[in-house]
Amino acid sequence: MTEARRYDAQTLTTFVEQLFETAGADSEVARVVTRVLLEGELLGHRTHGLNLVSRYIGGMRAGQVKASASLLEQVSDSGISALFDGHYVLGPYCVSRALDCAAKGATQQGIGIAVVRRAAHIGCLAAYLKPFTDRGLVAMVYSSDPSVGLVCAHGGIDPIYTPNPIAAGIPTGGEPILLDVSMSTVTLGLVGQCREAGRTLPHPVLMSNDGQLSDDPGDFFTTPPGSILPLGGREFGHKGFALALLVEALTSGLAGHGRKDAPDQWGASATAVVIDPRFFGGLEAFTAETSFLGQLILASRPVDPERPVRLPGQTGLKLRKHALSEGLSLAPQLVDELDQLAAQLQLPALSQ
Amino acid sequence: MTEARRYDAQTLTTFVEQLFETAGADSEVARVVTRVLLEGELLGHRTHGLNLVSRYIGGMRAGQVKASASLLEQVSDSGISALFDGHYVLGPYCVSRALDCAAKGATQQGIGIAVVRRAAHIGCLAAYLKPFTDRGLVAMVYSSDPSVGLVCAHGGIDPIYTPNPIAAGIPTGGEPILLDVSMSTVTLGLVGQCREAGRTLPHPVLMSNDGQLSDDPGDFFTTPPGSILPLGGREFGHKGFALALLVEALTSGLAGHGRKDAPDQWGASATAVVIDPRFFGGLEAFTAETSFLGQLILASRPVDPERPVRLPGQTGLKLRKHALSEGLSLAPQLVDELDQLAAQLQLPALSQ
Repeated sequence: MTEARRYDAQTLTTFVEQLFETAGADSEVARVVTRVLLEGELLGHRTHGLNLVSRYIGGMRAGQVKASASLLEQVSDSGISALFDGHYVLGPYCVSRALDCAAKGATQQGIGIAVVRRAAHIGCLAAYLKPFTDRGLVAMVYSSDPSVGLVCAHGGIDPIYTPNPIAAGIPTGGEPILLDVSMSTVTLGLVGQCREAGRTLPHPVLMSNDGQLSDDPGDFFTTPPGSILPLGGREFGHKGFALALLVEALTSGLAGHGRKDAPDQWGASATAVVIDPRFFGGLEAFTAETSFLGQLILASRPVDPERPVRLPGQTGLKLRKHALSEGLSLAPQLVDELDQLAAQLQLPALSQ
Repeated sequence: MTEARRYDAQTLTTFVEQLFETAGADSEVARVVTRVLLEGELLGHRTHGLNLVSRYIGGMRAGQVKASASLLEQVSDSGISALFDGHYVLGPYCVSRALDCAAKGATQQGIGIAVVRRAAHIGCLAAYLKPFTDRGLVAMVYSSDPSVGLVCAHGGIDPIYTPNPIAAGIPTGGEPILLDVSMSTVTLGLVGQCREAGRTLPHPVLMSNDGQLSDDPGDFFTTPPGSILPLGGREFGHKGFALALLVEALTSGLAGHGRKDAPDQWGASATAVVIDPRFFGGLEAFTAETSFLGQLILASRPVDPERPVRLPGQTGLKLRKHALSEGLSLAPQLVDELDQLAAQLQLPALSQ
């Protein structure tokens, strides 16, 4: 095991970009994907940060995941509305291009939208937002994966759709509000972690394949599989279910590629929507309102005096700030994994 | 008490339009507001249907609510992005104009957005959507009311924001999917109904003003007041809370008019977003995907065999179909109320 140690962001950027480039990625793709994965790591999303590097490069080597910018195909473009076919190019590159495209429309006419079908794994949606809020834009990302069914309909047993997150970056007068929430109670990641750790879930949010509520991850990994309850749970799951259908429509529906096509390869449908407040009440009035609301919330009395009320993204942005000034602390296991990858690619190790 | 009896939609339309016109509404405003309220009634939203007629006309008579189309002011317009100031014109007129404006942008360039500040009460969001799904458009409406605070932050005690619904109409090959869900566990309407009926809430989703979870509506109506938990409840309320902040940003934030302005009159900030699938993967691929997903869901095994899984809006659309062919059955109390209003306005009674 390597010792825990801090790495500065620039060192990590150069190291990870070289891994991707040496593994065959275009330099532009390597740069964008590295930036998004590092941003996930900076925000504290350890399961959607640099730990994805070896998975992504593994996918490239297996030939399933592509890393050439020219493969990302623009299918339609109205100036403010666009459709891309990702052809399984690395997801962070596809989503970043979609967001850039939507932001262009937004700055020209107030709103822009870009839809991507068949992006490879897209990582952590929260990691995409800050470059847009820094420009005073509201950025939203929706995603689903039509090759996977995990979550049940409200009142149903069978797994049908994915957790279908909605993410948004909202500018304020200070740090942005960054939200990234799934329309299911929990994600597959948590169910898997609990199974590996031999723990039950914190709440009974699984449905066994015979229709019993359960907190036992074993009830999910059965044949046929169990399912995850929609956001809202047994009582209010009609709301999370309805919102998940909206996300399906905005992603796979608009993409024209979804569950009806029975894709057999993991791949995201993702939709980026960007709005420029300058075309409405103005950026100043917008951030005055979001800052005022943020202050109201932060001044709210907490239920538990030890746990003050926080804004979405606040904890991640604090971690990010600290990591940028003091360096990132990576898990020794992750450093080992990256170093093995470097050795395979005949590159110098990170830990040297 | 008048006997329960069925009324055909055209009779009701003419009757209600006359009420609004005689009370001083422009004929265009009367027509649009009547259509939206009747649609709410048809879909079975009894608390957001024709029962609002007397409340709306009461507001007009008190001078708080306006009913002149010319008062709805267009503040900005980029072709696809617009801001309106409603100046407290009847909300269904404001929201319908915003949706029409957004739909125009959508059919021209793929997406359109229109934001309204200071609309008077806007009724039931689900009631706005079908005219757009009938044209093959995806229509979304978000709303908040900056003059009211009811829902707490996740982990907080104090009421800060409104239930902030998200509504959407999604075309399929058959009936549309119509969703209309608040980002809180329950709405104020339900809390009030339970108080009046002397019942507890079905679940402990209230927070008393000293930070205790409660199902007693009395714990909400205190001084200072209690609050309603965000969607997701105590366990997953960070998700509903985050989505509610997004709705605040998309409505009052973009409107440039919100809580920071401490409005003392009830009034909605509402945002309409319309998307035309023809600019992306095409309408046929869109409805093929949403129909396929709908079929998967309807074929899902139900937890309770007596309660098959349903799609959002399905029950309402069935009620609507039945009411359009058989006539609407109105509560006798509502007919009495409408007849009293007609008498005051020297119009013939509905029940005659």
